[in-house]
Amino acid sequence: MIGARPVSSTSEIETLIEMMARLPGLGPRSARRAVLHLIRKRALLLAPLADQMARVAASARECLNCGNVGTAEICPICADEARANGEICVVEDVADLWAMERSGQFKGRYHVLGGTLSALDSVGPEDLSIPRLMDRVESEGVTEVILALNATVDGQTTAHYIADQLEGRVRLSSLAQGVPIGGELDYLDDGTITAALRARKAL
Amino acid sequence: MIGARPVSSTSEIETLIEMMARLPGLGPRSARRAVLHLIRKRALLLAPLADQMARVAASARECLNCGNVGTAEICPICADEARANGEICVVEDVADLWAMERSGQFKGRYHVLGGTLSALDSVGPEDLSIPRLMDRVESEGVTEVILALNATVDGQTTAHYIADQLEGRVRLSSLAQGVPIGGELDYLDDGTITAALRARKAL
Repeated sequence: MIGARPVSSTSEIETLIEMMARLPGLGPRSARRAVLHLIRKRALLLAPLADQMARVAASARECLNCGNVGTAEICPICADEARANGEICVVEDVADLWAMERSGQFKGRYHVLGGTLSALDSVGPEDLSIPRLMDRVESEGVTEVILALNATVDGQTTAHYIADQLEGRVRLSSLAQGVPIGGELDYLDDGTITAALRARKAL
Repeated sequence: MIGARPVSSTSEIETLIEMMARLPGLGPRSARRAVLHLIRKRALLLAPLADQMARVAASARECLNCGNVGTAEICPICADEARANGEICVVEDVADLWAMERSGQFKGRYHVLGGTLSALDSVGPEDLSIPRLMDRVESEGVTEVILALNATVDGQTTAHYIADQLEGRVRLSSLAQGVPIGGELDYLDDGTITAALRARKAL
C-alpha cells in the first residue's frame, strides 16, 4: 500500500501513475485509481484530457498586470473597463483570487502577490510583485487597497509591510475577522473567537 | 466553495478543471488546486503530463488473455513462461490484480473478471469474462484456481458461481482469513494479502 508500484502494469502506465501521484491532493493510491478509471474510458476521458492539458500548457500565462492566470496577456478582469473603479484587492495567489470572485461581491481589480514575505525562506518584497503593486497604485488612479491576505503570521506580516508602504497614499482596508457564516462557536479556535469578540458590533 | 466555478479563469482552464474534477478521488476544490499547481509549472509538469496521457491513451489496452491493462496484446504476466505454473488467480478488476502483484507472493497468472455477478444490476456470467476463464482452465492446463474476489456479497456470490462451474475439474481455493469482512483487496496492505494468500483454503 505504501509506495509500492504496480509491477504488472507496463512502464508507460507506471510513469503516468507516478506523475499523477505528484499532484497536490493525490497520492500513489488515488493516482492508481484515477489512472485505471481513465484507461477504462480512454477514448472518452483520457485522450480528451490529454488534449485539454496540452492546450492549456500551450496557452496558459500570467496576466502581465495583476498576475491572474489566463490565456491572454491581460486577463479579462484587468481588461474589463467596468472594473476600473479605483479598488485593488491584494491576494497571495490565484486560488485566493478565484475564491474572492466566487463570492461575486468585489467589483474592482486584483493584484496577485505570488506568495508572502518570509524571513525564514528569505522571500523579500522584490521576490513578490510588490514593486508592481506600487506602480499600479500610481498609474491606475487607485483610491482603495483591500489587503485580502491569509490570516497567517506570514500573511499578516506581508499585509503590514504593504500597508506601511502605501500609508497616506490610498485608503487601506483588510477583510474583517470573525465567526464564519454557518460556523459553530464550539468548533472555532480561540484566536478567531478573540478576534470576533474584539470586533463586536453594536446591534 | 460548493460547486461554484472560478469566474476569472478563461474557459480553456475552466474546462480542464471540470474534466479533472470528474476523476475519482477529486472534486471541484482539489481539481482547482491540482490545475493551478500544473499551470504554475506548466513547462515542467503540465506539458509532460499531457504527453504521457496521450501516449497511454494511444497504447493502453486490455490483455486478450487475462484482461490486465498494459500496452501489448498479451500482458507481461501472461507472456511470462515462468508463470505458467498451472495456477490462475481470479480477481474482480485490474486494481485488485495490481494489489496482488504488490504483495509479490503469487507466481501464477491472473484472470480479471471485470466486475461481479449482480442480480440487481442484471450482470450475468456472459457480461463478465467467465466463459473465457472456462476456456483458459482447459487450454492452459490449469490445476488450481484461486478465487481472490472481494469479501463483499456480490464478490462471494460470484466466487460461489465460479466454484460451482469448476467443481471437480481443478483444485479450488479462496483467500483465507486476513481479508476483513466488507473489505476490498485494493485497500489492503501487502502483509495482509501475503498472509491471506499463504493460508488459502481448499473448497
